[in-house]
Amino acid sequence: MNIEIIAVGSELLTPDFQDTNSLDLTRSLHDLGLSVSRKTIVGDHRQDLSLALLNALSFAELILITGGLGPTGDDLTREAVADALGRTLVFREDILAGIEERFRLRGKPMPGPNRRQAFIVEGAEVLANSAGTAPGLWIEAGTKRLILLPGPPHEMKTVFREHVRPRLAARRQGFAARRILRTTGLTESEVEERISGLYPESDDIRLTVLASPGRIDLHVAAFSVRDEAGASAKADALTSELRPKLGTAVYTEIEEEMETVVGALLLRSGQTVATAESCSGGFLAHRLTNVPGSSNFFRGGFVAYANEAKIRDLGVPAEQIDEHGAVSAPVAEAMARGARIVTGADLALAVTGIAGPDGGMPGKPVGLVFVALSSAAGDHSLANRFFGLREGIKFQSSQKALDLLRGYLTGIE
Amino acid sequence: MNIEIIAVGSELLTPDFQDTNSLDLTRSLHDLGLSVSRKTIVGDHRQDLSLALLNALSFAELILITGGLGPTGDDLTREAVADALGRTLVFREDILAGIEERFRLRGKPMPGPNRRQAFIVEGAEVLANSAGTAPGLWIEAGTKRLILLPGPPHEMKTVFREHVRPRLAARRQGFAARRILRTTGLTESEVEERISGLYPESDDIRLTVLASPGRIDLHVAAFSVRDEAGASAKADALTSELRPKLGTAVYTEIEEEMETVVGALLLRSGQTVATAESCSGGFLAHRLTNVPGSSNFFRGGFVAYANEAKIRDLGVPAEQIDEHGAVSAPVAEAMARGARIVTGADLALAVTGIAGPDGGMPGKPVGLVFVALSSAAGDHSLANRFFGLREGIKFQSSQKALDLLRGYLTGIE
Repeated sequence: MNIEIIAVGSELLTPDFQDTNSLDLTRSLHDLGLSVSRKTIVGDHRQDLSLALLNALSFAELILITGGLGPTGDDLTREAVADALGRTLVFREDILAGIEERFRLRGKPMPGPNRRQAFIVEGAEVLANSAGTAPGLWIEAGTKRLILLPGPPHEMKTVFREHVRPRLAARRQGFAARRILRTTGLTESEVEERISGLYPESDDIRLTVLASPGRIDLHVAAFSVRDEAGASAKADALTSELRPKLGTAVYTEIEEEMETVVGALLLRSGQTVATAESCSGGFLAHRLTNVPGSSNFFRGGFVAYANEAKIRDLGVPAEQIDEHGAVSAPVAEAMARGARIVTGADLALAVTGIAGPDGGMPGKPVGLVFVALSSAAGDHSLANRFFGLREGIKFQSSQKALDLLRGYLTGIE
Repeated sequence: MNIEIIAVGSELLTPDFQDTNSLDLTRSLHDLGLSVSRKTIVGDHRQDLSLALLNALSFAELILITGGLGPTGDDLTREAVADALGRTLVFREDILAGIEERFRLRGKPMPGPNRRQAFIVEGAEVLANSAGTAPGLWIEAGTKRLILLPGPPHEMKTVFREHVRPRLAARRQGFAARRILRTTGLTESEVEERISGLYPESDDIRLTVLASPGRIDLHVAAFSVRDEAGASAKADALTSELRPKLGTAVYTEIEEEMETVVGALLLRSGQTVATAESCSGGFLAHRLTNVPGSSNFFRGGFVAYANEAKIRDLGVPAEQIDEHGAVSAPVAEAMARGARIVTGADLALAVTGIAGPDGGMPGKPVGLVFVALSSAAGDHSLANRFFGLREGIKFQSSQKALDLLRGYLTGIE
């Protein structure tokens, strides 16, 4: 069965807007074992929209259309679908009453143009929109099914979840299971080399590697025509083969950030942390304090860009900076130790390096970053060389520091 | 003239990938006065791809196709285009030599499958790819033009910039001029109310409002069939009408962040700044240190989540916290003053508030945030109520603090 998604809206053809509805629908359909075969974006022109619908009707059995159900004259999806199917539009008093009620509850009269939203394609089933005025429509035409959804993302998601998903679930083509292994510390080619023998050959399971600076995700998607357990079993089997190849590089198996993982480890162990940052400039503290409830484990942070700040706030010995330079292992460790002692935290992380674009020097290039961890048991640091732009280097620096703490808390190191 | 963009790749139909090439091409085409009429995404299936091409040939005069030019058997764009046009593929010795040379320079032998990339559609003009192995192709077929571009974004951009842009510029349909007014401090409905009379009626100029928490952008896009000056004049005329309606809420007229604006103001005035953060958790320092060269104006930052840190590191009087609470105007001002004095900076910003999701209390709800600015001339604070999730509240808090500094440095307040 071919499935096509059509996103309607002239704004989606300008440089200002990315169509996000199609990706969201793709994910929702995947969970029902349904794959998308084509996506089309078309503007608010009746002729263009009708042509796109005719193309879709000759290609796909299931067609999802988002947008163009609003109240204005630009919103032509209802008309174009009626054209393409050779049907008429019919006025529904009950829909109008619902729209009027919605405005009444907000203490406003219904603007005249909203009346257009009470017209539906002849024979369509109405999908009530609890998040807005435009109802969705479910249309059966021979072997074809057309589903019209409102364009605003939260309305689209609401109508899909409340009405489309249950109806499609009854017609599902199978079951999907997804797994994710989120890694750090390996390059993309290291990951590829380790898993090279494990790319699945079969059509019902897929492995995708998504690389970004400081993080590489492995996505496993498995399908079963029979049941959820079958899909899960396939996904788990591949994931179990991948896991030992990646070892401790895997920091989570759900879609969460490193700071969430580290925050949970800190809470579980009852330990507290502080930060001392030079080149990461507060980003490490920002990530740790993104975790809800971080006030329970975060004892405080210092952004010590200048050498005087390292000396004054963190007690880094001036002679150490003179001897090794601010970007060095001894200074990183002294910064971490200082932050730990000043704040009374159990642990402290420090970052010092050169984020660029300027500031590189012979022997200390842009991207050279030391991260350090201090605990009552002692201090430890790692030298790293990161590549990319300033913000990418800041991210990788904070990621490495958090990973150092993860290693400590899980006993990896 | 209708223009269609076709993005080819089965991965673009999975939940894991967003097609970004089409948006990038849309922007590049807009700069040449060319508007996109339809976008299609199709998988690596010869039949689906051929059908999409036939649909495109019956709709558009200019068709840009990205992806499917790689070396593997999945890469079928060359074949499908040849099918759709009724042409053959021809082998080009010179392209093969170029690909082999590219591998040789990297000290690797060319893998066998790359030979496929030396085949071109009969009659096509080759667009050399200086960023990868797959050349682009420019094909004229009657009144139709097809442009094949490699899928990897940096290769697509390179081939477009080096070969497609100059060729299209000769056939440009007009000239585009874009302006942006980036604002903060107003709600979306306040912006809409202020500019309500200024939405252009004409087809050759467009005004778009893009709202996100803490920032609302107004985009103006104007077109002229004649010349760049004509487009610029139209864009400038509307921008000049918008500007006084928005007043000091406009913080920049280019695509740059608030911290870049503030960093430039600091550098120009020769003043330095420090930060003291509670609920923004280092995000304010992070934004300031995102500015290249920020070591010239950033004197240091404190992430003082706990009351003890506010007292110890920033010298906030304990009795002030007891009397007013940590989330209060006096404490915000004391934090800023403390950061300024400790670091010796000319100016300091402080943020204290409740980012949520927990921590709200009667009279001090989640989203209540005080920002303060301290200078030698005195201290000043603002109470704010922000809405959204934790990270959104952190962003809005930092945005407001930076805006307070902008006001001070430009003499707005």
